[in-house]
Amino acid sequence: MKKYNTSPLSGMQELLPTEQAVFDQLKQNISDVYHHYGFLSIETPIIERTDILLAKAGGDTEKQIYMVSKTAESADSADQALRFDHTVPLARYVVEHNNDLAFPFQVTQINRNFRGERAQRGRFREFYQCDADIIGREKLPIAYDAKVIACIYDALETFKLPKMLIRISNRKVLAGFLKSLNLSEKTSEISNIIDHAEKVPVEKSTAALRELGLSDGQVDKVTAFMFTRGNYEEIEAKLKEIMGNTESVTDGLSELKIVFDILAKKGTGNCIVDFMIIRGLDYYTGTVFEIMLEDYREIGSISGGGRYENLASNFTDQKFPGVGGSIGLTRLFFVLREYNLINIETKQPVDYVILPISKNEYEASFELADKLREQGKTVDVDLSDRKLGDKFNRASKIAKYAAVIGNDEVLSGNYQAKNLKTGEQTPLMLP
Amino acid sequence: MKKYNTSPLSGMQELLPTEQAVFDQLKQNISDVYHHYGFLSIETPIIERTDILLAKAGGDTEKQIYMVSKTAESADSADQALRFDHTVPLARYVVEHNNDLAFPFQVTQINRNFRGERAQRGRFREFYQCDADIIGREKLPIAYDAKVIACIYDALETFKLPKMLIRISNRKVLAGFLKSLNLSEKTSEISNIIDHAEKVPVEKSTAALRELGLSDGQVDKVTAFMFTRGNYEEIEAKLKEIMGNTESVTDGLSELKIVFDILAKKGTGNCIVDFMIIRGLDYYTGTVFEIMLEDYREIGSISGGGRYENLASNFTDQKFPGVGGSIGLTRLFFVLREYNLINIETKQPVDYVILPISKNEYEASFELADKLREQGKTVDVDLSDRKLGDKFNRASKIAKYAAVIGNDEVLSGNYQAKNLKTGEQTPLMLP
Repeated sequence: MKKYNTSPLSGMQELLPTEQAVFDQLKQNISDVYHHYGFLSIETPIIERTDILLAKAGGDTEKQIYMVSKTAESADSADQALRFDHTVPLARYVVEHNNDLAFPFQVTQINRNFRGERAQRGRFREFYQCDADIIGREKLPIAYDAKVIACIYDALETFKLPKMLIRISNRKVLAGFLKSLNLSEKTSEISNIIDHAEKVPVEKSTAALRELGLSDGQVDKVTAFMFTRGNYEEIEAKLKEIMGNTESVTDGLSELKIVFDILAKKGTGNCIVDFMIIRGLDYYTGTVFEIMLEDYREIGSISGGGRYENLASNFTDQKFPGVGGSIGLTRLFFVLREYNLINIETKQPVDYVILPISKNEYEASFELADKLREQGKTVDVDLSDRKLGDKFNRASKIAKYAAVIGNDEVLSGNYQAKNLKTGEQTPLMLP
Repeated sequence: MKKYNTSPLSGMQELLPTEQAVFDQLKQNISDVYHHYGFLSIETPIIERTDILLAKAGGDTEKQIYMVSKTAESADSADQALRFDHTVPLARYVVEHNNDLAFPFQVTQINRNFRGERAQRGRFREFYQCDADIIGREKLPIAYDAKVIACIYDALETFKLPKMLIRISNRKVLAGFLKSLNLSEKTSEISNIIDHAEKVPVEKSTAALRELGLSDGQVDKVTAFMFTRGNYEEIEAKLKEIMGNTESVTDGLSELKIVFDILAKKGTGNCIVDFMIIRGLDYYTGTVFEIMLEDYREIGSISGGGRYENLASNFTDQKFPGVGGSIGLTRLFFVLREYNLINIETKQPVDYVILPISKNEYEASFELADKLREQGKTVDVDLSDRKLGDKFNRASKIAKYAAVIGNDEVLSGNYQAKNLKTGEQTPLMLP
């Protein structure tokens, strides 16, 4: 009889061991690629000062933040809360440790964050984010934007997903474009409409633009702009068509061109310029990008990020420009399972289970296990005193192979591994 | 100018990237060995229902627990708090998912826990624990106790520490011994005195025993008992000396013998029976063990654990006996650094930094980087437009080798790697 509700709290991911092994493998894949690109790992505390977390945040974030009450023993003076992303702690970290860091600082954080969002299927309150950021001191060349995009794309490639599409924009292009239309002071409202355009019929977007007081001509141009996508040459031509003279967007366009050139040289996937990509409102100042699955648009973006002019402006007067991106792994894992899109070798967590017939075979079993471990295999030795059938039953739930060790095997030194799926027996090769 | 206090909260570990790389390597080593022994990873939420966390805990734990206040949006009915160890969430997990688990369930959790302890040097409020547990259903043979000890010992062996000592006791022996002295009802007080005996002069322990009302003869016997240590044969003989007839402790002794036999067969390190090992009061019911560094006793135990009769008695009537152990990695890492005992190859986080002379060498640099990555190397390409000297300066802070790529190198295909410590140049071998 259960005495308590033992389910995890709502909004928390909790996996069975075989599922966890897949999740961990995906996380490891991302981490490996980030490291191969030279990103350095850091880990900041999950609990932070509330004033640090809320220095910039407003609205939703404040409502969703988990406050932590200090215990009697740890009566710090500061109010404390759980971090809701990696960016704010990274900003604090860079300011705190900037004298000990080598800039450009290529940094990765793969860890859990917390937001008390409304409960909803596929929405998590505790979730992994896999961030890769490059932080400069004073300045950071635009080429790094391409590096972050290439790195995150390569990380996702290890997932063996169906066709991915990288959509890249640059906020400076939008800013210049709106300036040319004398709409600069409506930038944030228009950005917001573009940001949501993908999810609504086009009439709804144009109606919203008209409501903002745009003339028919302006509505047409903004609409044409936001549907502008293609390779760099295509969009450059299209922009000229819409704007006539593209001088006011030169800066953003030349940044886009550099990013595109590098991605082309690196041979990074399928990239398009796509001015519908906005990535929220306040934060990004240049490059913005999203990666999606071409044939599963309803999933939305599976990763995104961009360039920010100043990481830590809330904490210091020093300037730390940066570019970064993130994979929201907990949500992504959930969605990929829903769509049955996880094709990585879902290896069972254990390679071999060794089944000694009696205590007399323990020594030989341990020796065999150690030899297999030296080969990098994961090996469980079943020491329970249950029937062999029960042991096989357990083994087949967690492992690929089982090896029964009885007196004969010990005497002959001939060990056989049984494939637990096919039943096939093969000799265990030992060095 | 700083606008906020950007230091991490007191009691939180925050490392520089090079230190983090060492910490992560140690964590990875532990994880690898646990997996090689067939332990399956799980991950439970950091936030749990308060009533689950406090079902058993009392006193200190309750004072140290971090309560979490729900946000407006996540207005769950349950009170919530941060977990303070892996054992309570594991108990909940086993009860919740028991129909989907294969017993004996070999499980590992390597993750952060939270306790609001009084601030103190070397004490952490957020800390990694690396747990390995084996949970049975209804029963679990004593041989598994040896398996957990061997596994944790092997994990620590990867740290390349000075001489380790495994100290093993069994609570049933103490129970039987006290029963033979008619002292059963004072078991917890006497356990407490033995538990602290190592840190105080022997007179203080004997005085405490006398205060409990023990006769001189009883005090002598308990004192002799708690200083009983050695290999199994030695302590068996010594116990006979103290007790005459050892029948009342037969059960505990035979368990100790099995554990010792298996560890000997496995060739696991330097083990002794040591009745001074208690490991706290309530929890453990049979085997208890600690691992220490023989020449650094002042550090205290670097790992410990034991057998518990019933993991989840607070949550269910089903019986789940278990045995487990833990490495408190955050504290251990702190202490090992204090004593300068970290001898693992502290590899710089990055293998190669590639330094293209100009944008003309980007393509060749990316190609070279990708080739090195295919060999498993970590490679950073410096795309900043600083002077070459500044780039070398940065590279030497984070990497082992740097490779300058100019026009000559691109044309000839001869790439040289410069060892950033020795200055030595060697040709970069590519497949």
